[in-house]
Amino acid sequence: MKQRSFILPLNKMPNKWINILKNFPKAVLPLVDPKTNQPVPMDFLKSLFSEELLSQEVNSTDEYIPIPDEVRDIYSIYRPTPLVRAYSLEEILGTPAKIYFKYEGVAPSGSHKANAAIPQAYYNKKEGIKKVTTETGAGQWGTALSFACEKMGLECLVFMVRSSFEQKPYRKILMQTYGGRVIPSPSEETKIGRELYKVEENRRGSLGMAISEAVELALQDKDTHYTLGSVLNHVILEQTIIGEEVRLAMEEIGDYPDILVGACGGGSNFGGFMVPFLKENVEKGKKTRFIGVEPTACPTLTKGKYTWDYGDSGELIPPALMYTLGHTFVPPSNHAGGLRYHGMSPILSYLKANNLMEAVAITQLEVFKAAVMFARSEGIIPAPESSHAIAVAIREALECKKTGESKTIAFNLSGHGYLDMAAYDDYLNNKLDLNEHPDKEIEKALKELPNITFKV
Amino acid sequence: MKQRSFILPLNKMPNKWINILKNFPKAVLPLVDPKTNQPVPMDFLKSLFSEELLSQEVNSTDEYIPIPDEVRDIYSIYRPTPLVRAYSLEEILGTPAKIYFKYEGVAPSGSHKANAAIPQAYYNKKEGIKKVTTETGAGQWGTALSFACEKMGLECLVFMVRSSFEQKPYRKILMQTYGGRVIPSPSEETKIGRELYKVEENRRGSLGMAISEAVELALQDKDTHYTLGSVLNHVILEQTIIGEEVRLAMEEIGDYPDILVGACGGGSNFGGFMVPFLKENVEKGKKTRFIGVEPTACPTLTKGKYTWDYGDSGELIPPALMYTLGHTFVPPSNHAGGLRYHGMSPILSYLKANNLMEAVAITQLEVFKAAVMFARSEGIIPAPESSHAIAVAIREALECKKTGESKTIAFNLSGHGYLDMAAYDDYLNNKLDLNEHPDKEIEKALKELPNITFKV
Repeated sequence: MKQRSFILPLNKMPNKWINILKNFPKAVLPLVDPKTNQPVPMDFLKSLFSEELLSQEVNSTDEYIPIPDEVRDIYSIYRPTPLVRAYSLEEILGTPAKIYFKYEGVAPSGSHKANAAIPQAYYNKKEGIKKVTTETGAGQWGTALSFACEKMGLECLVFMVRSSFEQKPYRKILMQTYGGRVIPSPSEETKIGRELYKVEENRRGSLGMAISEAVELALQDKDTHYTLGSVLNHVILEQTIIGEEVRLAMEEIGDYPDILVGACGGGSNFGGFMVPFLKENVEKGKKTRFIGVEPTACPTLTKGKYTWDYGDSGELIPPALMYTLGHTFVPPSNHAGGLRYHGMSPILSYLKANNLMEAVAITQLEVFKAAVMFARSEGIIPAPESSHAIAVAIREALECKKTGESKTIAFNLSGHGYLDMAAYDDYLNNKLDLNEHPDKEIEKALKELPNITFKV
Repeated sequence: MKQRSFILPLNKMPNKWINILKNFPKAVLPLVDPKTNQPVPMDFLKSLFSEELLSQEVNSTDEYIPIPDEVRDIYSIYRPTPLVRAYSLEEILGTPAKIYFKYEGVAPSGSHKANAAIPQAYYNKKEGIKKVTTETGAGQWGTALSFACEKMGLECLVFMVRSSFEQKPYRKILMQTYGGRVIPSPSEETKIGRELYKVEENRRGSLGMAISEAVELALQDKDTHYTLGSVLNHVILEQTIIGEEVRLAMEEIGDYPDILVGACGGGSNFGGFMVPFLKENVEKGKKTRFIGVEPTACPTLTKGKYTWDYGDSGELIPPALMYTLGHTFVPPSNHAGGLRYHGMSPILSYLKANNLMEAVAITQLEVFKAAVMFARSEGIIPAPESSHAIAVAIREALECKKTGESKTIAFNLSGHGYLDMAAYDDYLNNKLDLNEHPDKEIEKALKELPNITFKV
């Protein structure tokens, strides 16, 4: 009988995160105040984030950061997660390629987001914070943070993109079950929310808007901090446990990936998945290819510009150097709510700009076709976000079928889709929203980029 | 760091099911035709079931039944499943008890039902059957069978209890995603369905009605068989892999259960969970207690009668000797759709009647209180059905707190509740349907039991 699933023993669960900024210090650029064209003062950032997280954010000297025991203890509720050889999918495709997936959907919140939520709740609690605010798109990050805060004894306030809030009522209930408070954004609870809500086209919300609301509340109260589930350097850092577990499991199996594929929204799951192998490319001359996959509805890496832009619609988060579609861009409603962010992690942006990773944008139709094929073969219902990675893994496996190559392809199955069945229903009944090439809206938003003249 | 999760290595996954009928041959009583008061002819049963499954059904001589390699291969997609020490729950309860749960929610369909669906699809396919019909309550069995049929290349038709069909649209979509066809029951597709639908109070449906519809179609077509996800001896047999994995994992951990707890609808999950330990009680003089938990809304074991009754409302499945509330009983709508069956597995009924197991009925309020406590501590959202077991495990753990005993309590977490969030919403917002003591309806149904004079 074939061994499909590989789970590292608990004593091999990584006890340190990998700090890729050590290898690419140029990716750590300061946030810039557009008024002064100077780096934003640390005091501003300290009013938002825990000191330990800020120190992770700008640290380009330590190769590794130890994972606190308290964090590892909660990780052990679901980690190490399985690395699965997708034999049934390979068979259906008739490919000579070997396909693996790392399954992060076993986490309490149903996705990889728990990996960053737990340390963020931990450090904030340790520093005396009582409450954290955040935004959530698909609801994955909000769910993870609700669970982590419950574990740490912190209050948790989640601004959920209004279109997701309405499309995904189960997500909201899940957060509430874990003890989080959930508010549809734009909301009446903040000044910026009330302003945004006045404009009809803003009402479906966006991650950028929800971020503005969460930040506004954190700035007003010294016992409240803001948390972010993607984009930032410390989030990518905390997610590296995914890829490191893959690397260790592959070592035990005696295999090594030729290609790694992951979905890209803000960059957290793919960043965490690829970083340990990127480090091997750099330090050991390995040649793994990295392919980030995004929806054509929000094609940040493939149609965005590598420049300075705000992290949110409300212009509360100062500009960072990244790929962006413009912070005023509101993507069309599509089901992959977690991939609707206008920007991209500065680390991944740096890698893309320097040809250290590839990017591809695909349609929802290709995504769901892959998702259903995967569900029927491997049994797991994948999140629509994660299914972007499945679709491109399938593309690469079919390419192997043409060339006869037996490449090793691994993708990150960042979450399950049991709360996304409405989107499956739409696909199965040909009701998917296929408005997903917002070229004119992108063009317009790119014209509204801030004018930053800061020199690196 | 504490080891929470124990997963047997693949090479220790059981390769045989345990046939408890060898120990309790009196539990295998024939189905009786009420017209003749004689055992039902095998020819009738053969028009419904695969020969191999029928042979498992009445086999009281073999101690073990080998699990076919093809079945074990598909089992390996999700098995062995984790046995988890619920340290966080223990801590919140402040109990000296050790609490373990076996987590069957990692199966493709989200519950233990896959364990029986896969062999049933396998044997039917092997015997040349093209299509199988079935009923489903909560949707767990229909989902498992849809997946198993997809794997085996069989057509799958699922009659879903109409109240569940309406309350749980995501379940329906899940079945469709796996390739099953789903019809709300009572339906227009069968003679019995059309008859039942005429009576207003039947329209919310019941497992008994859905069974009648599925059986009717199977009787009409020689290429179609009927399958059942619970109650029958062969289903309990196929589920014994759950308990056997628990026994083997406990052996590795160096622990042994004092108390096993499981939810009881038709008996499949608790039967499969307890049988390997029951065998040890009988053969090795062990003293494990077995507690079956049912909803007060459908209290088969605690308020039913141990007698001959039909397996379905339409009187198509001949009477078996079991605990029953009467086959005309329609339980009040409550969220634990999987625990709404009027009867109980003959094996479990035999055990209860002979004081070899205990039974307790609890309210939905206690169930959901336990479910939320479990979700917040252990991270997993439990199915409402499985939460019946959690609630009584908590009761027993609190009893240990009083007495200071450090008992080992294990329960079967038979499935996850990610598709049951609407019920959680009701609980969190005090909207739970609390009409759950249908004493008058039970009294009425018990008066309508068939008059069987067959002598064992």
